[in-house]
Amino acid sequence: MKLLFDNASQLVTCAGAPRARRGEEARQMEVLTDAALVTKGERILAVGPRDALRAAHPDAQPIDCGGRVLMPGLVDSHTHGIFGKPRHEEQELRAAGVGYMEIAKRGGGIHSSVRDLRARSEDELLALALPRLRRLMAHGTTTLEVKSGYGLTLEDELKSLRVIRRLQRALPIRLVPTFLGAHEIPLEYRAAPRTRDEYIALLVDEMLPRVAAEGLAVFGLQLKLHADELETAGAAELAAEIGAVSADHLAAVSDLGIKALAASKTVATLLPGTMLFLGRPRQAPARALLDAGAAVALASDFNPGTSPTVNFPLVLTLAVSQLHLSVSEAILAATVNGAAAVGLAADTGQLSAGYSADLALFDIEDVRELPYWYGDHRCHATWVRGAPALLTS
Amino acid sequence: MKLLFDNASQLVTCAGAPRARRGEEARQMEVLTDAALVTKGERILAVGPRDALRAAHPDAQPIDCGGRVLMPGLVDSHTHGIFGKPRHEEQELRAAGVGYMEIAKRGGGIHSSVRDLRARSEDELLALALPRLRRLMAHGTTTLEVKSGYGLTLEDELKSLRVIRRLQRALPIRLVPTFLGAHEIPLEYRAAPRTRDEYIALLVDEMLPRVAAEGLAVFGLQLKLHADELETAGAAELAAEIGAVSADHLAAVSDLGIKALAASKTVATLLPGTMLFLGRPRQAPARALLDAGAAVALASDFNPGTSPTVNFPLVLTLAVSQLHLSVSEAILAATVNGAAAVGLAADTGQLSAGYSADLALFDIEDVRELPYWYGDHRCHATWVRGAPALLTS
Repeated sequence: MKLLFDNASQLVTCAGAPRARRGEEARQMEVLTDAALVTKGERILAVGPRDALRAAHPDAQPIDCGGRVLMPGLVDSHTHGIFGKPRHEEQELRAAGVGYMEIAKRGGGIHSSVRDLRARSEDELLALALPRLRRLMAHGTTTLEVKSGYGLTLEDELKSLRVIRRLQRALPIRLVPTFLGAHEIPLEYRAAPRTRDEYIALLVDEMLPRVAAEGLAVFGLQLKLHADELETAGAAELAAEIGAVSADHLAAVSDLGIKALAASKTVATLLPGTMLFLGRPRQAPARALLDAGAAVALASDFNPGTSPTVNFPLVLTLAVSQLHLSVSEAILAATVNGAAAVGLAADTGQLSAGYSADLALFDIEDVRELPYWYGDHRCHATWVRGAPALLTS
Repeated sequence: MKLLFDNASQLVTCAGAPRARRGEEARQMEVLTDAALVTKGERILAVGPRDALRAAHPDAQPIDCGGRVLMPGLVDSHTHGIFGKPRHEEQELRAAGVGYMEIAKRGGGIHSSVRDLRARSEDELLALALPRLRRLMAHGTTTLEVKSGYGLTLEDELKSLRVIRRLQRALPIRLVPTFLGAHEIPLEYRAAPRTRDEYIALLVDEMLPRVAAEGLAVFGLQLKLHADELETAGAAELAAEIGAVSADHLAAVSDLGIKALAASKTVATLLPGTMLFLGRPRQAPARALLDAGAAVALASDFNPGTSPTVNFPLVLTLAVSQLHLSVSEAILAATVNGAAAVGLAADTGQLSAGYSADLALFDIEDVRELPYWYGDHRCHATWVRGAPALLTS
């Protein structure tokens, strides 16, 4: 079946080569007016002048965009969407001056999510995750990376990844599962009789083969790194050296790390919501990364401890106001480059013929309104692989 | 008619003396469980233990809160809701390093909103404002202050205030109109043959009497000040000295200003969203104000140039993460103290017998989730003067 998306105020294509966008090219998202888009089944068939497409595809069913902005569905390439209870009490502790490490020492932080997740069944975790991922979807995301990493035992990591697999069946968006058994060394491997090395061995010898055998993850097998989040550790350089698909966080990346990323194929994924929520003044040096020529992606980092937001457009606001990206750079970072950060640059994140028909329709007249009306909910509808995924009444 | 609000997970009363809350007392919002609330017509009749209220009011129609959090409707005491076009192009200029004053010099900033508003009819402005105020409503606000101030001529200020009056008839929330003819000296009074003093004279001799005669505003007659927003100017001290109801912004308030506010009845109204959107690192010294004993309110500052957000709960997030308020302090600042900042502390902003039945029901289990799920939309329903104002499907 063919659909003709017509009557958008703007059609933002983000079109370009099927790879991460960097440098000058990355500054242009391409905004078409008087344009239309035709899909056939799961794919985009054509993008071009409205009149020409109407004439060429009289058999296509028209979809009236109602003067809204049509653009690629957002690609959120970094979330920790599988968790139990929210951790709002830590937000207040932080506000009162208690630090991240101190909260962790008190048994809070990531270890409280680990304890909590281990105690829950797969069904419980699914029931908790479903409405949370629906909220993420509601803001225009059509591709969502989701990590395990609050289990930290073979069974609990498999449980988390199975929840992601069941979410993929239940939800109309594309999920990209990441095995993050290396999220943290669990407490039971931090003191005798067990050692950290034993946990690493468990990861490598047991967990990874099992995850691979069951086909439960895309990443963890391919590489994504949490890099230089709070302290400079040379992780960006490492990510570039080993050819990681992305290096994420980067608030504390060094100048050498910036150069290494700019010279590599590794996408620099920035998570400004996290720094906002943590109340930290230091944001990743986004302009330095862009100006050096690195490919920059943005993501929500949705997680219970440091970034419980489902509002990806708000992250675009922060990209402009805190990271000094142009709107075009921010939009590309949340579409094309998000797709590159999950290895899908040839499949989604842009409105080009042959790409997956992953679309978002926002209730604004100008794409620049998306980061502008900050904290608002402007997504009107999304389509994933040509099928309606969301329609706001 | 009596209504019995039952089955809330928490009932957050914010109860206390009918005035701005300050000091230690201001740190407690009062969270009740197994509690209920009874309204009669426009007023709250009783708040107390569920079983006792059920027994005492068998004639009341039950409202099932469904395990959600019931609290006072939010009071947003500082907005500039009457304007024409959005000003998203300035957001990008700022990100590129162009300053507020430079944008203003280029004919942007407030003067572009003034030109734009003058060119529009009352009907046009009403049509633009209605959906914007509905979006503000949708996040749980039940009392909304709205300023004129983009007209800066007698006719254009009256036009703006008449739009507010028509909005009041069209919307089920309580609006508090403020005449802000002194928002800025209009361009035509900045150079010969006219003078700034002539504009002040116009304000005092013509505009104020006319606004008063037509009953178009509450404030402008009573006093609210934009104080020490970008530069320290002694405005907080002035506000306290002249007995202003509130002094707003305060990012650049001095130590003397803090002391003056703490010793006064003037509410210190903080607008952290504005500093976020402007990308400014400096936030108002909220802790110093609170610790000195000042009454602190929060508001959205909804306006087209420096804070185009409709998401008041996001402002609560910023209050915790950027201003280091506790959740209790933030909630009180957005309810009781917001009410005090618009002179309504004896009427709204708390769940106490005799108060206006202005309620918000949020789809969370714990009130601390309200600032936690940042950027989300969790308001399920509101009531204003006992009547349903909003119901989310």
